[in-house]
Amino acid sequence: MKKKSNTKKYVLGLDLGGTNVRAAIIDTSGKLKSYIHFPTESQNGPEYVIKNIALKSLELIGKSGLSKKQIWRAGIGSPGPMDSKKGIIMGAVNLPGWKRVFLKDTLEKFLGVGVGVDNDANCAAYGERWAGAAKGASNVVGITLGTGVGGGIIIDGRLVRGANYNAGEIGHTSLNPDGRLCKCGAKGCLEMYASASAIAESAREAIRGGASSIMTEAVRGDIKKITSKTVYEALLQNDKTAENVWNEFIKYLGAGIANQINGLNPEAVVVAGGVINAGDRLFTPLREAVRRQTFALTFSAVKIVPAQLGEFAGAIGAAGLVINEGDFYGL
Amino acid sequence: MKKKSNTKKYVLGLDLGGTNVRAAIIDTSGKLKSYIHFPTESQNGPEYVIKNIALKSLELIGKSGLSKKQIWRAGIGSPGPMDSKKGIIMGAVNLPGWKRVFLKDTLEKFLGVGVGVDNDANCAAYGERWAGAAKGASNVVGITLGTGVGGGIIIDGRLVRGANYNAGEIGHTSLNPDGRLCKCGAKGCLEMYASASAIAESAREAIRGGASSIMTEAVRGDIKKITSKTVYEALLQNDKTAENVWNEFIKYLGAGIANQINGLNPEAVVVAGGVINAGDRLFTPLREAVRRQTFALTFSAVKIVPAQLGEFAGAIGAAGLVINEGDFYGL
Repeated sequence: MKKKSNTKKYVLGLDLGGTNVRAAIIDTSGKLKSYIHFPTESQNGPEYVIKNIALKSLELIGKSGLSKKQIWRAGIGSPGPMDSKKGIIMGAVNLPGWKRVFLKDTLEKFLGVGVGVDNDANCAAYGERWAGAAKGASNVVGITLGTGVGGGIIIDGRLVRGANYNAGEIGHTSLNPDGRLCKCGAKGCLEMYASASAIAESAREAIRGGASSIMTEAVRGDIKKITSKTVYEALLQNDKTAENVWNEFIKYLGAGIANQINGLNPEAVVVAGGVINAGDRLFTPLREAVRRQTFALTFSAVKIVPAQLGEFAGAIGAAGLVINEGDFYGL
Repeated sequence: MKKKSNTKKYVLGLDLGGTNVRAAIIDTSGKLKSYIHFPTESQNGPEYVIKNIALKSLELIGKSGLSKKQIWRAGIGSPGPMDSKKGIIMGAVNLPGWKRVFLKDTLEKFLGVGVGVDNDANCAAYGERWAGAAKGASNVVGITLGTGVGGGIIIDGRLVRGANYNAGEIGHTSLNPDGRLCKCGAKGCLEMYASASAIAESAREAIRGGASSIMTEAVRGDIKKITSKTVYEALLQNDKTAENVWNEFIKYLGAGIANQINGLNPEAVVVAGGVINAGDRLFTPLREAVRRQTFALTFSAVKIVPAQLGEFAGAIGAAGLVINEGDFYGL
């Protein structure tokens, strides 16, 4: 028994965010053995951040009762754009000062194992496909609703990276070429209608425009404090303004998901982010909105489900990618 | 010399349309050796049509100076929906009475070679990737503008078929969930704004709404006779109404293509259909419309180009698929 567990292979899964880093030890079936999170401290520069990630990871390995040689590889999800083949971060909005950072090479030096780097949203989608809500499906679309709308696409079991590793930007597919101007410069991006921020902003707009709502009391008149949670709570109280905002959100999210379904005919669409806590209040009307915008046969083949892996989806996905697609990263 | 040409392998490429069938003999590099087209005569039923395709194909082989044993395999593009793995046509709008037709098995029986069946629009996209405008690219989106808008997607060199072989319906991705109602039941489909029919219909609407245009004279007052070609010819004469219609068409087509580019980050988007004869009047503003709706890095990686294979794209693509993806069809 002892011998077996000593020789078992583990992988380090990492998720580098603007505020926090998540690190996890994951077995080759995708099961989380142990995990930590700690502040990124990006203000200290890339070299410090990467060294700190390695240090904390080695600590985690020790605390988990493993020896370093039981760690086979490490995968890390990071904001992009990046060259995921070479593991170079080109620059990331949430990591100020990161320009052409050799994340793979530097982390390999400090960790002493082979490293694969990929886009954080792609890792999260891959995680759900490998070990979460879409386990075993060949074709999967992952969508994360947060400040923005992130995405990742898996076709025939492999992550879609594209010509220069920028694939999966589902949040920036447009639902109206004359619509709201997005930070990315395009008009009508899904992100402008279906992110948690967009839900909150739509509620604020409605109230500023004169709509009466219990949301105004909920934030004691300070409209700026409305969040997507405020909207959801008002929805549960049958607040008319909240219902209108929610219905618009569902319509756009449904259309955005339907576009991926009509294009790619996946077995599963996994929706992640705090908003999924709304449960049936989200998924029942969402499935109906998607049904209206898709072919019956295509719709019959897809399940639209909440993510299962929570905040460690990215770390788990990064681990899964270095296990299953090590060839891509030269591992 | 003689011996070499006798042993050279060829493939039969077929494209089954509602009105005509196209048949071509294609070498393993994608070069067209000889070809014919003949009426489908779908009113005579599936058995007759398939037998006739086999007969005409065998004639073509003979006339091309080949023996039947030089034909390695046959690929056929067909309208769907279908089970392309088993080669069964489930039913096709343009082939009345075709319900659960065993196209692969029946054609194999009559031809005596292994057959692969796939969606016609997917075959056309694959043809351009294999031997046409996107030759050698790994990730390609093909869009055909006709009565409708057809599509096909190639990722990492392989055709995307999806969970039940309905992938690639780019014409039915929505650009407005409150937009024009499409025949498919969804709202705001790209097809409703960017098909050749939609261009003509937009012009008719404008003129019926009171817009003055030289198009009215061009069809001698019979507005119904306006086609996308009428619009294009008026555009060349700087007709204001035609310009407005054309600009709207470009905006929607650009946004629809941009959505595929932001999602999939392809090296090439190939646009097919009669409308591409407009040349720079189409492609120059189209590239600009796409640029506005995409990320700079993603846009820099993609070329947006006219199709090169013309009416035999589907037959060539069907041949390419049985050569390169024979495993999928059990060949």
